[in-house]
Amino acid sequence: MTAYDPDNIFGKILKGEIPSHKVYEDDDTLAFMDVMPQSRGHTLVIPKTGSRNLFDAEPQVLANLIQKTQKVARAVMTAMDADGLRLAQFNEAPAGQTVFHLHFHIIPMYEGVPLRPHTGEMADQDELAAQAEKIRAAF
Amino acid sequence: MTAYDPDNIFGKILKGEIPSHKVYEDDDTLAFMDVMPQSRGHTLVIPKTGSRNLFDAEPQVLANLIQKTQKVARAVMTAMDADGLRLAQFNEAPAGQTVFHLHFHIIPMYEGVPLRPHTGEMADQDELAAQAEKIRAAF
Repeated sequence: MTAYDPDNIFGKILKGEIPSHKVYEDDDTLAFMDVMPQSRGHTLVIPKTGSRNLFDAEPQVLANLIQKTQKVARAVMTAMDADGLRLAQFNEAPAGQTVFHLHFHIIPMYEGVPLRPHTGEMADQDELAAQAEKIRAAF
Repeated sequence: MTAYDPDNIFGKILKGEIPSHKVYEDDDTLAFMDVMPQSRGHTLVIPKTGSRNLFDAEPQVLANLIQKTQKVARAVMTAMDADGLRLAQFNEAPAGQTVFHLHFHIIPMYEGVPLRPHTGEMADQDELAAQAEKIRAAF
């Protein structure tokens, strides 16, 4: 497996070189809106410690990440008034991984609303900002 | 949210009332083959402590579950000689949850091979047994 390269998009978000709509941050974790959402409120949760994906992550990083993902998922569910919620985590390109920094997708689901493809269009930035604000308020 | 009901299919597998093709077991965790696999080697990982899904799980149960899921995922990846791997975890029926005992799907991905729908046919039991044996040998 290729080694972790800190110069990926999420690495740049962590370094503050690329903006994001943040919904949660602590010493170890960052959560922000996916700019190509599969559903309304699609959020990403990443550890600040770099790893390529599940396979090279430290167990303690994984433990913390899933616990923070639970917190963020509860806030997303409430803020978006969703009917259900999926977690997804992709490893390597044949699995759909496009950014090589470990991340969990939090994808709210709505009765009767199919998911959009993840390779869809960029969402409206004002909409993402408004969603992020609602989610932050739901913690 | 509805409370956890121990009389679900995975609860029955834990009690030994329903058979499964086990790939990993310890004091807290069980992993076994999905009988309606979306890809060759599709495996499920569940905590022995009952919770309905992500939302009502104890943080410590989640931490342990993702760490064991990492172990099992590595074995699945190796044993199945997969090109990538997805984790998926569904919460509530509108998100696709059909068994209401917290579980992670480990779905190996193969270059150019699309996923089968999860509501597909039951897999051949001998095939599942052979896959489980290969995965157990890859730990």
